[in-house]
Amino acid sequence: MRAAMRFFSDNAAAACPAVMAALADANQLDTAYDGDAWSQALDGAFSALFEREVRALWVTTGTAANCLGLATLCPPTGAILCHEQAHIEQDEAGAPGFFTHGAKLTLLPGEGAKLTPDIVEEACARVRYDVHQVPPMALSITNASEYGLSYRAAEVAALGEVARARGLGFHMDGARFANAVAFTGQSPADLTWRAGVDVLSFGFVKNGGMNAEALIFFDPARAEAVPRLRKRSGHLLSKGRFSAAQLLAMVEGDVWLDNARAANAAAQALAEAAGRERLVYPVEANELFVRMAPAEAAALRAEGFDFYDWAAGEVRLVTSWDQDMRAVERLASAIAAL
Amino acid sequence: MRAAMRFFSDNAAAACPAVMAALADANQLDTAYDGDAWSQALDGAFSALFEREVRALWVTTGTAANCLGLATLCPPTGAILCHEQAHIEQDEAGAPGFFTHGAKLTLLPGEGAKLTPDIVEEACARVRYDVHQVPPMALSITNASEYGLSYRAAEVAALGEVARARGLGFHMDGARFANAVAFTGQSPADLTWRAGVDVLSFGFVKNGGMNAEALIFFDPARAEAVPRLRKRSGHLLSKGRFSAAQLLAMVEGDVWLDNARAANAAAQALAEAAGRERLVYPVEANELFVRMAPAEAAALRAEGFDFYDWAAGEVRLVTSWDQDMRAVERLASAIAAL
Amino acid sequence: MRAAMRFFSDNAAAACPAVMAALADANQLDTAYDGDAWSQALDGAFSALFEREVRALWVTTGTAANCLGLATLCPPTGAILCHEQAHIEQDEAGAPGFFTHGAKLTLLPGEGAKLTPDIVEEACARVRYDVHQVPPMALSITNASEYGLSYRAAEVAALGEVARARGLGFHMDGARFANAVAFTGQSPADLTWRAGVDVLSFGFVKNGGMNAEALIFFDPARAEAVPRLRKRSGHLLSKGRFSAAQLLAMVEGDVWLDNARAANAAAQALAEAAGRERLVYPVEANELFVRMAPAEAAALRAEGFDFYDWAAGEVRLVTSWDQDMRAVERLASAIAAL
Amino acid sequence: MRAAMRFFSDNAAAACPAVMAALADANQLDTAYDGDAWSQALDGAFSALFEREVRALWVTTGTAANCLGLATLCPPTGAILCHEQAHIEQDEAGAPGFFTHGAKLTLLPGEGAKLTPDIVEEACARVRYDVHQVPPMALSITNASEYGLSYRAAEVAALGEVARARGLGFHMDGARFANAVAFTGQSPADLTWRAGVDVLSFGFVKNGGMNAEALIFFDPARAEAVPRLRKRSGHLLSKGRFSAAQLLAMVEGDVWLDNARAANAAAQALAEAAGRERLVYPVEANELFVRMAPAEAAALRAEGFDFYDWAAGEVRLVTSWDQDMRAVERLASAIAAL
Repeated sequence: MRAAMRFFSDNAAAACPAVMAALADANQLDTAYDGDAWSQALDGAFSALFEREVRALWVTTGTAANCLGLATLCPPTGAILCHEQAHIEQDEAGAPGFFTHGAKLTLLPGEGAKLTPDIVEEACARVRYDVHQVPPMALSITNASEYGLSYRAAEVAALGEVARARGLGFHMDGARFANAVAFTGQSPADLTWRAGVDVLSFGFVKNGGMNAEALIFFDPARAEAVPRLRKRSGHLLSKGRFSAAQLLAMVEGDVWLDNARAANAAAQALAEAAGRERLVYPVEANELFVRMAPAEAAALRAEGFDFYDWAAGEVRLVTSWDQDMRAVERLASAIAAL
Repeated sequence: MRAAMRFFSDNAAAACPAVMAALADANQLDTAYDGDAWSQALDGAFSALFEREVRALWVTTGTAANCLGLATLCPPTGAILCHEQAHIEQDEAGAPGFFTHGAKLTLLPGEGAKLTPDIVEEACARVRYDVHQVPPMALSITNASEYGLSYRAAEVAALGEVARARGLGFHMDGARFANAVAFTGQSPADLTWRAGVDVLSFGFVKNGGMNAEALIFFDPARAEAVPRLRKRSGHLLSKGRFSAAQLLAMVEGDVWLDNARAANAAAQALAEAAGRERLVYPVEANELFVRMAPAEAAALRAEGFDFYDWAAGEVRLVTSWDQDMRAVERLASAIAAL
Repeated sequence: MRAAMRFFSDNAAAACPAVMAALADANQLDTAYDGDAWSQALDGAFSALFEREVRALWVTTGTAANCLGLATLCPPTGAILCHEQAHIEQDEAGAPGFFTHGAKLTLLPGEGAKLTPDIVEEACARVRYDVHQVPPMALSITNASEYGLSYRAAEVAALGEVARARGLGFHMDGARFANAVAFTGQSPADLTWRAGVDVLSFGFVKNGGMNAEALIFFDPARAEAVPRLRKRSGHLLSKGRFSAAQLLAMVEGDVWLDNARAANAAAQALAEAAGRERLVYPVEANELFVRMAPAEAAALRAEGFDFYDWAAGEVRLVTSWDQDMRAVERLASAIAAL
Repeated sequence: MRAAMRFFSDNAAAACPAVMAALADANQLDTAYDGDAWSQALDGAFSALFEREVRALWVTTGTAANCLGLATLCPPTGAILCHEQAHIEQDEAGAPGFFTHGAKLTLLPGEGAKLTPDIVEEACARVRYDVHQVPPMALSITNASEYGLSYRAAEVAALGEVARARGLGFHMDGARFANAVAFTGQSPADLTWRAGVDVLSFGFVKNGGMNAEALIFFDPARAEAVPRLRKRSGHLLSKGRFSAAQLLAMVEGDVWLDNARAANAAAQALAEAAGRERLVYPVEANELFVRMAPAEAAALRAEGFDFYDWAAGEVRLVTSWDQDMRAVERLASAIAAL
């Protein structure tokens, strides 16, 4: 199958040129682990991006980023509130339970895989805060959501308000944070710490990185235990500079944002072709959920397009930073012609 | 400091050309996780190398390889017998306790960080196999050892015999397995499964890889749970092909062996210069432990050489696959002149 | 408050005379832990009761019984299917996550806190059995249920069929198993292993015991790891004979069944007084959930009756083995007069 | 075998009359769990005993007391320093690893199973406080020790000083704390919090209790998480009043101290008979370790005495609160006659 025709997942796309160049640059002896110059520069680079002092660590996967983050926010005796479609619930093989030593995920409903203050409040209100029930200790949202919807800063802030009032640590799974920033046009700061977020899993892998993600703590004090947890979970790389260099290369010069804009633009082109009727949700990042009869999906596949069957009568299309625009146009035409 | 003068750790060396080329080759869209062609080829490549069917998985760190392996050999209620200087005890931040959910490391003595059948037998004999004590369930050795000694196949086999008799799963931490193969001239098969080893952490990072290690199960049935454990611990990379491609590139054409031979040769050159009196142990891999007065160490450092203070009056010198031979000669001369 | 007027919980009732006598009998030196004659007699006594060879262990709490049982059925990487109102989810402070090292509870709906084969099948059908999702490995039901409904043997067997087909270990939380046996008139064997149940938490505490429960394995091979897990979780009593003697005393002479019948009869008397309109569910054990306006509940309390507010407009009445029948009659009259 | 002739373990002795009476008194309906009047009185009773405000909780076993206590002092990423013969290492089936989610026990030497400040200091000095090694976070000693030696208050205070300086939480396994108090004549306060102890497992089971121990926190703030941990580990009894009533009955009127004095006196009688030559250690509690040829031990056993073989050529004799003094005299004579 030609790679250009794949709309299956941004997870499998190539690494972008800036990343490949950074790897070559970093390919020299330096201090092991995270003692090298690149790793040491992460805090500074991300502090500049977020307009405040942050602590930034590389990890290799989104699952590791999410779960190391959650482990700092929720003790084994607590619960993490999240959407029932959240990646941490659906696609991480129980990793939150592993990293938190058995804390619970409390699953909440919500349109488009997004949570609202009311939903979170109701969940808290249902709990007896006695020794028999598991108290909520953290809140986790995904931005952009598992249905490709982007939280606006005000929406995050409203959730941050509930989190603060209820004493919940606030985590954002930002596997597609770049796409949310690109779509909303709101600043990384406004979408996170100014809205009450404590910890961000800032995704780079789906956006052109080579197995490098950034784990961001907006309160450096919260991050104190993380280097040890990272080591203890086998995530302290011997040659961390190769991860750090990637992240720096993508942050400097706004490569991360350009890549996300490219992926979002491809998705918008497809969205316009699909039309409002077919779209399950508005397209606010780089994913489309499209209503499509099995025969229609088969017809597209016969033309060489590759994508994921989501639910009965729905398919998922994902665009990547390097999506071939001619293929996008061809798919757009094909969808419009269904 | 000039990189060439560093004898600090093989952990921080550059990635070798075969690896960098492999990354470039693999930089195209393929299936995510380990569904790609490179990852799928690992079992075959390592089965060929080990002369039997094996199951081979990439992971990013030696700690992850060791602990995922140990988690398949020892339940939470068991103990893992290892040397008191073992890396899993000294340098993994308690990761074995994390991955095994609290299994115990039972620490044993042994010359040169090596275990012998007698030592293991005595440890087993001390245990009451009742419900109050923790029964040994696994044995872990490091080859080459933490003091740079290489087990011969017969030594491993003698330990394998005890392991079999005592019902212990047998793990080898092979962070420097390549160096042991290169030094002994014995085959990978003879040093592992033919000698009773069940699981091998086959190190590539210290030998020219870029954060890729191979976890080898000699009985594929033992490996059944590992893919899930790898995912659950956040170690399933989205773009696993970049790890797989490295391993394949180093296995094909014996790059792994050539690199190890180069590192060993550099160590031998230094060993000859140091002379038998100064060496704490014979040099059987790429590490030297050298008796040296503080003033002597300081003199070498003043000349620009970099290395690690091991114990009182001892320093550790480590050579890498890409150690500059002129620097080796200079250091050899400097040591000889002490 | 007079104890006689309390309908709050069977959890707090007195220990029955047979138990107190057994404690006095056992108050002599014997072997520690479970090496004493009483503990050694448990397997035999419960094997006779269940008409097959079983392995029976004492534990002190229902939470320990449930979670030790579940830990033998579900690995850390699996999920336990249970009702969203299940005690293991609602009232055990996350103990299942602790004992299973982070396995997941997958919460299912179901009328009256009961599960049906369809509900379980649907839950299994929703799961992708890949490495990203958590596979169901066990099924847990509560009999009598959290709403006081008793599963009939045929209902359990239908669930057992699904469990077998789906490869799920099958656990029954029988905190009020005695009440279910008393209500259905079906045999302990028919309600458990003949219907596919693997492990039963057989409750005695709510039925006149003094902090002693029985954990029953219908396949003794499944129980192999349990003595060690019991010790490792701090549940191996030094003087286990005091627990064993209680259980024996209640099993011999059918004290357990007589006690349950007494509690059920008290509940039926109240149920008749309440009438069908007020009852949220039929009364099939020793709990009633009664629709009642706040003013009505207040009126009963003013007369000295004590009970639990369950949900808006509902109260819970629980009867114990030693419920004073005059108090029952007085409450019945008071309810009828509302 | 006649119970009177058993010197095997204090773990299996009868419950004392005060305990049996307390159980009868408490056998009435009250609030479940620890909401009853007896449980609520524990803090007060133990605060009086320890001459300061403490938090006191009942648990059923010494293992649970030790491990719940340690879990509050040491995170999963830390190490607990203890003697290599400590009960938590030798006889708790890895329970510390379970309750702490994988924290490490670092084993230290020490005469008579006692630790000294030097030994603890050396252990701390050996650790690199980096991310690769496991930092000591807690210190645990056993008083009386596993060899029946009692720490004096000044010895505890010297260790407390090291603990404070090194930032170690300080736990005392007081399975035989009563015997140490009885032997030294020093106050409970002087032997614990005034000497820097943070948490005490105060044993009652070996001293006449029926499966009830007290877990004492000298800083109530440290105890905050414990009720939840107790529940989560299945140790929250439904009818906690039966444990609380025992503890109260033994604290009031100094039953605990009288019982310990009786056991100690029996041990002293045997010690005098054995003579200094035979004793491995001075007898400072209710245990003797006696050098004895196998033939000698066999001779005693032939006379009906029951005891434990400790090591080659050594036997252990343990006396209980209710040891029959005629049997003690007979054994003393028999030993003297060897």
